[in-house]
Amino acid sequence: MTVKAYGAHAGDKPLESIDIIRRPVGAHDIQIDIAFCGICHSDLHQVRGEWAGTQFPCVPGHEIVGRVVAVGAHVTEHRAGDLVGVGCIVDSCKHCGDCDDGLENYCDGMIGTYNFPTPDAPGWTMGGYSQQIVVHERYVLRVRHPEDQLAAVAPLLCAGITTYSPLRHWQAGPGKKVGIVGIGGLGHMGVKLAHAMGAHVVAFTTSESKRADAKALGADEVVVSRNAEEMEEHASSFDLIINTVAAPHNLDAYLALLKRDGALTLVGAPATPHPSPEVFSLIFKRRTLAGSMIGGISETQEMLDFCAEHGIVADIELIRADEINASYERMLEGDVKYRFVIDNATLAS
Amino acid sequence: MTVKAYGAHAGDKPLESIDIIRRPVGAHDIQIDIAFCGICHSDLHQVRGEWAGTQFPCVPGHEIVGRVVAVGAHVTEHRAGDLVGVGCIVDSCKHCGDCDDGLENYCDGMIGTYNFPTPDAPGWTMGGYSQQIVVHERYVLRVRHPEDQLAAVAPLLCAGITTYSPLRHWQAGPGKKVGIVGIGGLGHMGVKLAHAMGAHVVAFTTSESKRADAKALGADEVVVSRNAEEMEEHASSFDLIINTVAAPHNLDAYLALLKRDGALTLVGAPATPHPSPEVFSLIFKRRTLAGSMIGGISETQEMLDFCAEHGIVADIELIRADEINASYERMLEGDVKYRFVIDNATLAS
Repeated sequence: MTVKAYGAHAGDKPLESIDIIRRPVGAHDIQIDIAFCGICHSDLHQVRGEWAGTQFPCVPGHEIVGRVVAVGAHVTEHRAGDLVGVGCIVDSCKHCGDCDDGLENYCDGMIGTYNFPTPDAPGWTMGGYSQQIVVHERYVLRVRHPEDQLAAVAPLLCAGITTYSPLRHWQAGPGKKVGIVGIGGLGHMGVKLAHAMGAHVVAFTTSESKRADAKALGADEVVVSRNAEEMEEHASSFDLIINTVAAPHNLDAYLALLKRDGALTLVGAPATPHPSPEVFSLIFKRRTLAGSMIGGISETQEMLDFCAEHGIVADIELIRADEINASYERMLEGDVKYRFVIDNATLAS
Repeated sequence: MTVKAYGAHAGDKPLESIDIIRRPVGAHDIQIDIAFCGICHSDLHQVRGEWAGTQFPCVPGHEIVGRVVAVGAHVTEHRAGDLVGVGCIVDSCKHCGDCDDGLENYCDGMIGTYNFPTPDAPGWTMGGYSQQIVVHERYVLRVRHPEDQLAAVAPLLCAGITTYSPLRHWQAGPGKKVGIVGIGGLGHMGVKLAHAMGAHVVAFTTSESKRADAKALGADEVVVSRNAEEMEEHASSFDLIINTVAAPHNLDAYLALLKRDGALTLVGAPATPHPSPEVFSLIFKRRTLAGSMIGGISETQEMLDFCAEHGIVADIELIRADEINASYERMLEGDVKYRFVIDNATLAS
């Protein structure tokens, strides 16, 4: 089956309309008509060849929402017409300890939604900047939000779960003080989710101009991280800080804000490492520097249901497919509140 | 009360015999006749002025064992004649959350056994390279080992608790695979303790020559960390790795050996930071890089009792006070199995 997509033929070429092939619907497969797809910063890294190993043509996109059009013979959980989502994962080994624990995101055999090996043509996965996708049922999520919120649900599939998972794992909730560093695509979801979980939420931003915005998102307090005095007021007080910033920066400044046994969890991955944290920053209060990557499938379903229940969606700017390249440039300038989402209906034109 | 001690008058001067004053025994104090004191690498850093803020004269020593000679009017837990120990902590605020939790080691007001401010003359604490010490009862531990093991008990007060505490905190025990990096003063205790806790213990050393020694200490396996292939065989398999090495080195090599949710815990603090770990090392398996500092007082008592029950002491080389300077040089060359302990009776001569 040939479908329209938007992708690049080389790292230094813009994305353009291309045709790609989707596999026939297997017994456990679900064929989805993609309604919307969010634009994640990873899309840009991969399609521009900034991360190693990009296969071209490359069709990015792993914040996918749409409607089921067909299901395989053995599929029982979904049927045609259902609103569904697909995130960063379209396959995994299905039998390791990680998969058994519902943490397919940590499976060594995890297959990402784009640029991962697959027996399907052309040999690597193609993402959600496309009209349709065919995915094994295990990796398809149910969307319970009202349909008119569907575009704003798309970013939950990556930005949402990437912040939700560490918030749950490190037990954000009532009585906990939680920091979110960076108020962008991931960070704005982190603030909304931590707030909905009942934590006391402090947003960290480098820009004075984002103070009001961060409060509107649900932050109880906002700290401009360039102000050393403002930072100092929060010394040794946080249970958890989720750091969404992908540019290298001083981690000691945030480690110093953790109370004993607190955790600074990195969910943004810079191209070059952060300056090395001081060992004493960790030793003095048994602090933890950790990382977290997306989330498992059952956890993603839990996150979607939590968001539907609490009326949480992403703040988005809806764009046409032919605006993707321009949106990448704006994303690099931080000029988006807070996520671009492609209207996949515009791929056809 | 004036007692003999061994200390230095400047960072570039050798240690020599000096007289120091101990405070009168207060209502909650315990006066201890020090029998033995271990030599910790921190002693050398502090007395040589390699760490900032050394006050001179400096008398190091925080691995203290001896016998109670007098107790204050309000002391109930100890009495004259008892075998006791004093570790790295001689005071703390006694009313913060950390103190309430029995983790005085993380109290912001923790007073170390040497070079910390005190109202006693001369204004900073003086350590265990001395004939006697007077310590508040809260920070005095009971020693239940047979008296003939007393010298070898001394290093438990720092090297023992510094490895015991993270092993307990990160739940070393049956079914867990635990690594100990560096087979020195701390590391050799880590191997013994993790083995006694029932974990599968892997010792990491840079030197082929330590293989047999590490096995004798209780390691189930020994990995020479310079052998990349040997390291690779243990990829993603550890629950916990305790890193005792204080020299800067590549942490990614050890992070890569942790399974999902595993922790690499630093207990050695290099003068300059380690090369910065890759963020992906943390993110890919939700791994943790953490620090841990000594342990709390109740935990130290628990450790001493655990060691008495399991017949665990340090492997030591007993020295005279006038051998301290030479022992420092040997320690710098790694020429000690595994801890020097001073026979404090030799301070008098």
